[in-house]
Amino acid sequence: MADPAPTPLRRPRADQARLVADVVRHQIHAGGYPNGLPAESELAAEFLVSRNAVREALAVLKAEGLIDRDPKVGTHVAIRKYNHGLDSLVGLKETFKGYGEIRNDVRAAMTVAAPPSVANKLELSPGEPVVFIERLRYLGDLPLSLDMTYLARDVGEEVLEHSLESNDVFALIELVTGRRLGTAGLAVEAVSADPHSAAILQVPDSASLLLLERLTHLDDGRPVDLEYIRMRGDRITLRGNLIRGQ
Amino acid sequence: MADPAPTPLRRPRADQARLVADVVRHQIHAGGYPNGLPAESELAAEFLVSRNAVREALAVLKAEGLIDRDPKVGTHVAIRKYNHGLDSLVGLKETFKGYGEIRNDVRAAMTVAAPPSVANKLELSPGEPVVFIERLRYLGDLPLSLDMTYLARDVGEEVLEHSLESNDVFALIELVTGRRLGTAGLAVEAVSADPHSAAILQVPDSASLLLLERLTHLDDGRPVDLEYIRMRGDRITLRGNLIRGQ
Repeated sequence: MADPAPTPLRRPRADQARLVADVVRHQIHAGGYPNGLPAESELAAEFLVSRNAVREALAVLKAEGLIDRDPKVGTHVAIRKYNHGLDSLVGLKETFKGYGEIRNDVRAAMTVAAPPSVANKLELSPGEPVVFIERLRYLGDLPLSLDMTYLARDVGEEVLEHSLESNDVFALIELVTGRRLGTAGLAVEAVSADPHSAAILQVPDSASLLLLERLTHLDDGRPVDLEYIRMRGDRITLRGNLIRGQ
Repeated sequence: MADPAPTPLRRPRADQARLVADVVRHQIHAGGYPNGLPAESELAAEFLVSRNAVREALAVLKAEGLIDRDPKVGTHVAIRKYNHGLDSLVGLKETFKGYGEIRNDVRAAMTVAAPPSVANKLELSPGEPVVFIERLRYLGDLPLSLDMTYLARDVGEEVLEHSLESNDVFALIELVTGRRLGTAGLAVEAVSADPHSAAILQVPDSASLLLLERLTHLDDGRPVDLEYIRMRGDRITLRGNLIRGQ
């Protein structure tokens, strides 16, 4: 045996299938296959795996709702995902400018006593009033995310004087304070939808969601906006760039 | 009615429960409640919600495996999550320095022909050889992530001459190339575990996972490392900071 030549992947079929599914999934999210996916035999040749592994991979993608399969017309992309930036601090309406209109269904907007852990993050005393807003956010007719927002009272009460249906909270905070937003601390988790959230977001029970906790400061460093955001995992990809530090 | 005073949250119980669960979940992830959670009645008073809503919230957290409940000893945190940085480009071993030892179970390490979409991202021609590595990564005895890595052949073949069991691929790339890593493009999604991945990661079928696609460049801009990383959603939180752009 001389120089190691490229060899077919000799691995359990389930491993081959996952590998094919991962690459094809990202191709789909990147806008690939506008005219449908290649035939099973072509994918098998492309990935050097068996046709059974390709079939298993396509079954996974179908279960995720990403593709439709029809013996007559072949395999087509069923849904597209939308990109949400991880690099900079922008609201959903700003983010999705290119995709379509963001509309907010305001499910709650009221002044409440801050639970201690919320108060703590907003640097308030427990029980101090904060403004609580809950919005279901649509892109066109598609529910994309369920956002729960706690705002410092002075900022929040002015924000409530404006339309929450068609404005990002970020934009309203900058409008009413006359300041720019500064930085935000972000935590991202993958969670299963509880039945109630699933119903609101129109996804199956236990569907995977991205759960973001985001604490946003004004440019003077004051924390004013604490949000818990549930994004549909089947519809949103978070994208950003990382830089190697020291 | 004068000035709006803080009022109890008059909302459907499921909405109250979600709100309590979200805040308590993040408290747990932040290391809160080392001596157990407060009693139901205290949580109800803290959040100004009904005890039934608290019970429902705790049931959600129990279903997520985050807490244990016992009528005798009360409610305790069952598992902790680990933070993985979103801000800079570091390997898992570097990231988890403070938590414990990262150990890699190398499930595959071989030269294969690059599928077109992998070749495209690594700026190679389809079918050119690339090095493929699959690792199951443990923190102590806990499986945390399943990583599939495609490396440019020249870099990858040198990487394979070193121990993959105990080193980050990032560190090995810098070692063998004598260059620093530059930037990486990152995509984060929430997906449900397919049965095979679930078995490998020791999570229930359909458990929520964070799926990262990360394309890393050397500091001269050359893309050398394409990874698909499945992280256990119940164990890892991605954390970073965002800055308001122009």
